[in-house]
Formats: sequence, structure tokens, C-alpha cells
Amino acid sequence: MSGIVTVVAPVNIAVIKYWGKRNEELILPLNDSVSATLDINVMCAKTSVCARPDFDEDTIWLNGKRESFSNQRLLNCLREIKDRAAYEKSVDNIFLTWKVHICSENNFPTAAGLASSAAGYACLVSALAKLYKVKSDVSLIARLGSGSACRSVYGGFVRWHAGLKSDGSDSIATQVADSKHWPEMRALILVVGESKKKISSTKGMKISTETSDLLKYRVEYCVPKRTEEICQAIKERNYNKFAEITMKESNQFHAICLDSYPPFTYITEVSHKIIELVHTYNEICGEIKVAYTFDAGPNACLYLLEKEVPKVLSLIKHVFPSSSPEAYVTGLSSRSEHLDTNMLSKLSVQPQEKDLIKYIIHTKVGEGPTVLVDGSHLMNEAGIPLSSY
Amino acid sequence: MSGIVTVVAPVNIAVIKYWGKRNEELILPLNDSVSATLDINVMCAKTSVCARPDFDEDTIWLNGKRESFSNQRLLNCLREIKDRAAYEKSVDNIFLTWKVHICSENNFPTAAGLASSAAGYACLVSALAKLYKVKSDVSLIARLGSGSACRSVYGGFVRWHAGLKSDGSDSIATQVADSKHWPEMRALILVVGESKKKISSTKGMKISTETSDLLKYRVEYCVPKRTEEICQAIKERNYNKFAEITMKESNQFHAICLDSYPPFTYITEVSHKIIELVHTYNEICGEIKVAYTFDAGPNACLYLLEKEVPKVLSLIKHVFPSSSPEAYVTGLSSRSEHLDTNMLSKLSVQPQEKDLIKYIIHTKVGEGPTVLVDGSHLMNEAGIPLSSY
Repeated sequence: MSGIVTVVAPVNIAVIKYWGKRNEELILPLNDSVSATLDINVMCAKTSVCARPDFDEDTIWLNGKRESFSNQRLLNCLREIKDRAAYEKSVDNIFLTWKVHICSENNFPTAAGLASSAAGYACLVSALAKLYKVKSDVSLIARLGSGSACRSVYGGFVRWHAGLKSDGSDSIATQVADSKHWPEMRALILVVGESKKKISSTKGMKISTETSDLLKYRVEYCVPKRTEEICQAIKERNYNKFAEITMKESNQFHAICLDSYPPFTYITEVSHKIIELVHTYNEICGEIKVAYTFDAGPNACLYLLEKEVPKVLSLIKHVFPSSSPEAYVTGLSSRSEHLDTNMLSKLSVQPQEKDLIKYIIHTKVGEGPTVLVDGSHLMNEAGIPLSSY
Repeated sequence: MSGIVTVVAPVNIAVIKYWGKRNEELILPLNDSVSATLDINVMCAKTSVCARPDFDEDTIWLNGKRESFSNQRLLNCLREIKDRAAYEKSVDNIFLTWKVHICSENNFPTAAGLASSAAGYACLVSALAKLYKVKSDVSLIARLGSGSACRSVYGGFVRWHAGLKSDGSDSIATQVADSKHWPEMRALILVVGESKKKISSTKGMKISTETSDLLKYRVEYCVPKRTEEICQAIKERNYNKFAEITMKESNQFHAICLDSYPPFTYITEVSHKIIELVHTYNEICGEIKVAYTFDAGPNACLYLLEKEVPKVLSLIKHVFPSSSPEAYVTGLSSRSEHLDTNMLSKLSVQPQEKDLIKYIIHTKVGEGPTVLVDGSHLMNEAGIPLSSY
């Protein structure tokens, strides 16, 4: 036995948005947030960790490239896991003194608004928790890496409670419903651009917290109401309610970015075209069939029920054509279904130029972090990455 | 004497925005707003009116084209002016029974977010008030034509009081400061596109009023505070304060549009580039030298002091080059001043493709509606438009 632990962890896409911290260092949010955890088999972070007496120093490789370990958030996560292990007496004390090697990879673009840091830190913390045999809830520790990472520690639908305590001990994630609860729920991620975002979400949140008057009202009044309503909608599998809140929340989050000073924006004209298309389509259908949400980037995540996927995919392919149609949709497979001509004439939306949407990831709600037992580690027996770039 | 009255009236650009009505029919706003009235010599509406016993019916020509008189807002304005005249006994009763001919023109594009309806209705109502010798305040009547028109009834800096009464009798405009009060104030209107806007401000306001949670807070908390502060800043000629509130207000208004359901947006990627440029430039300068504001369209209005105009014009010409530089800036003339290379290197903003900004109107704060006594009417002695298209 090599002592290497390898974990895969999911991304999550929030429907109630996390935007603004009450404590920067402890990453304590201004408000609760809610997300769906997405299928590990489609998108995931993968992390291998190993602690050995012969390692000279704590070392980390991200996507095969060695990175500095002096990142405070990384240090906080490792320290907290070790403290927890010591408290739980889960491993020998000597084991806690050994240095660690960490190899981590994402199977999707980093920092393109695709929640890569959430999956990454959830994966790291879950792997370390397994390595040090920590048994208790680690969402709090994942939170120290990246706020939204605490939601990727569980599968299904997850709520991150803002908490009230100044030490953050009650700022943890809990499951609203597990991954089997609403099996029809699907997500289509429309990747608009893979370019690095202009303003990091950490920086954006800070500006909003310091300058947006509207954010105060959002935090105190709007979010608590919406959080209760969407948790109820999830429990009742009420798609219409879920979808409406999801869209309004996305819009409000981007409104807050504009209300900040200086203002900033993550959504582009392509994002706005997607928003318009969704509203037009739902209006023609006479009910909400598909809902969008946008994080700190231009990519859309559409939440919809399985039976709507073929039509909506046809719609997107029609309005946002691709120059390589065979590689346009990745992830889960889906039946193909043509839009009827009646729908097309009602739409009165002209097809856009090609490749405004680069590709589409078709996925569903899935499980939390999973320990791999097939031995497919990212490092060899010596704790050195298998691949490096 | 022909009996024709001709008036020119100014546009106004709000710094505290009017967005949302508490009464649709009476055009009563949710909140106070504040604007600067801009020089009639640069941009104006022009209206000739005439009432005669031999006219068969009330008739209106807009930009030389005959339009329906069944427009309710137009009917309301005419009715109210006549009621006021009857109340004031300003003209013989028989005069009030004669039909009117109205000719109106704008010297700038209609419905491109350039406040054309404000100037148009202020002009119409001022001309009718002159025709019927109405002496009292007519801002209330102009408001019935187009809400923001009530602010174009006065020169200088103008406040539209939302009022509290359900009949709208206290929803009037008053002058905060006259056109001579702050003679250094200049405006640069950057015309991004002349295309008709997608969603009318009437419709947009209605959606926001019905659906935006944040609008409630804006109306109750943010606007009252900002209105007092900016009126104070105008009185004290405190540019820094005036400029900061102006930008924050513009941003919040557009945030409210995004928070509406369905969301809509008036500002484009070019607008966002202008916003970014202004913030970058101010940051390099170490203080606010120029402030943007956007109405229900992509065009920017920059408020700045006279001494900053040459530099800011150079900046815009550099970043947003024109394919016809000689016709790029219209309105007031200005010294030319090159950007120093130090500024250019600090800016690190690449020049954009040509003609993202179509033209620039350089203007200043000016007088209210003015009766023309030079006989340059838009109609002939028979009350028929001189030009028709």
C-alpha cells in the first residue's frame, strides 16, 4: 500500500448566490447560498495526496505544474485538517509531522467562471481528510480554501449557512436533498469563453461589500426569503418555482456588480443573448422550461428537466451554431429532437454567428467527493506527479 | 401678426434618475430626480403652434410628418393647458374652442436615449402656454406628456419632486440653481448608436416597478439621500461630490434594469468600455475629472468642468478613433490638447476599432424654453408645415 489517497470532487453551480464576505480571512459570507452539485463523471477536480517521512517540504502541483505552497488559503486548509486529526486522535502524532505532496488537476478550464476553485479545494480537503482519517464534517475547512468549496463537499442540493459566530464555526454546508432526490434535474453549461476573467470574484465581492448600497438590502431582505423558498421548491421538486428564483437570483447578483463602485460586469453580450433566448422560449412555451444562472463569468448554466433537454439543445444549436457540431455537446448523451417549424417561426430569433458558444457540457446533479480505489493516482510511488507540463 | 408661437426647448440629462412610476396615467414618479438642462443652441426641440377658427381639427406634424392626434399624452397636455387658461381667464373663451396646428422638430435623433421626448413635450407645453397666455408653472403639464419633460421647463439644474398627492398636483419641477450658477459645467454626449432602443423606458419602468425587489430599497433609501447630497453639491459647486453621485446613480439605475424580471439592459459593451475608461482616467489623475451617466440607451453623457474638456476629448479621440475626425465633435468648440505620453503609458488602454462612438456633442448647462421672436416658424401663415418628408 502506497499511502497515496486520491479523491475526485464535483463542481457546484449556485442558484442562490454567494457574493460578499463578512470576514475576509475566515471567508465568512454575508448570506446563505444554495447550489446543485454536478456529476463527477462529467466535470471534476482530482487530487492525490501523500505524507511521508522522507519528503523535505510540503509541495503542490496544479495541473502538473509546481506551485508555491505559501498560499495562505492552502496553508489554512492543511493546518485545520491536521488540527482536526489531532483533536480526533485519528492518526499517530508522528504522521502529522510528515510533509505532504499534493497533485491536483481539473478536467475543465480554470478560472473561467466554472467553479474550478470550489471543486479544487473540496477535493484537496476531502483527500487530506481521508489521508488523516478525519471523520467529522469538513465543509468548514473547505470553506477556508474557497468559500463555495464548502458546498462541493456534499452531493445533491446543498446549502451553505452563513452562520452568526465570529469564529465561523457555524458557517458550514448541509445537504438540502441528496443526489437521488430529483433525478430528472439536468444542467447544460454553455461555455461562452475560456478567457481569464477580468476581475477576480474575491476582488469583486470586496468592492461590492464596500460600495454597493443595494447589496445591504439584498443580504438582509431578498436572500433570506429566496433561500427558504428555493429549499422548499427543491424539497417539493417544484421546477417552476426553482427556475424562477434561480433566474431572479442570477440577475440580482449581476445587478449588484453594476451597483458597485467602480462597477464591473461578468456577463457579456452573448450572455445577454442567452438570457433573452431563455425568456422568449419560456414565453412561447407558456411556462418555464429552462432557467439560466451566471456566476462570475460569461458562461451560462441552464437548469432544466431531463425531458426538455433534447428540445433545448436543438434550440441552442439553432440560435448559436457551432463550426464543429460533432464536438459541440460533451458529457451526458441525449436524444436528438428537431425544433418544430411552429416554434421556430414564433421565436423570430435569427441564428447568431458561429462559435459564440464554444461548447456545451451536458450534466446532472450528482454525488459529493469520492475516494478512488482503482489506484489511478496522479503521483507515482515516490510522490512525484505522473505528468508535468 | 400671424398668431403663430414658436418655442425652442432644451434636453436635460438626469444625474438622479427617474425610473418607476407610482401612477402610470398621471406619470407620477416613485422618486425625485435631478438633471442639468443643456444648451438650446446645441440641442433642442422646436415647436410652432397656432389656433384658428378655420382649422378643421387638431393636427400635429413631427419632423414634418403628420401624426395621429389621438395620442393620450398629447391630448392630456392640450386639455390641461386649456383648462389652466380658462381658470386664469388668460384668453377669450372663443379662442379655446379653436383647433390647433402643431409642428415640432428635433435637431437630434429621436428615441436614441437622447431625451428627445423630454425636450419635445417641454417645447409643446411651453408653446401652448405662450399661445394661451398661461402664466403659472407648467412643469406639471409637461410631466403629463413625458415625465422627464417637466425638468426641461427650467434652465440650469432642476429637481423634479415626486410629490405625495394622488392627483399629482405637487409632482412638479423646481430650479436647484440657474444656468449661470456653475458656468464651468460642461457635457460631452458620446453617441454610441442611433438605433431605436429595444425596450421603451415606459415599458422598462413598468417591469422594474412590478418585479425589482431592489427598486423598493433604492426608492426608499438610496435616492432621497443622494438627492439631498447632489443638490447640496450643486449649490456648493462641489464637482467631486457631484461627479461621484452621478456615476453611482447611473450604475444603480442600470443595476435595477438587470434586477428586473425579465431583465433588460440599455448599456452595451461600448458603454462598459467608456465606464472603464472614465474610472481608469480618474484613478490616474488622482481625483475625479470626469463623470459618466447613461439613460435608457447606450450613449454616455460625460459631465466635466470646462478646463478638463481638451484633455478628455483627446483621451476619447485616442481610445475611440473616428473615421471622420473633422466631423467627430459637434457643438461648442474647444481648444485642442494632446495627451502627454506619460498619461498614455499609464492608461494601458488600447485604441478601439474605429467608429464605436459615432459622434460627440459638446455642450453646457443652459436656459429653459425660449420663445423665438425672429419669425423663424415651422409653419406658414396658413398653419401648414414649411417642410414635410
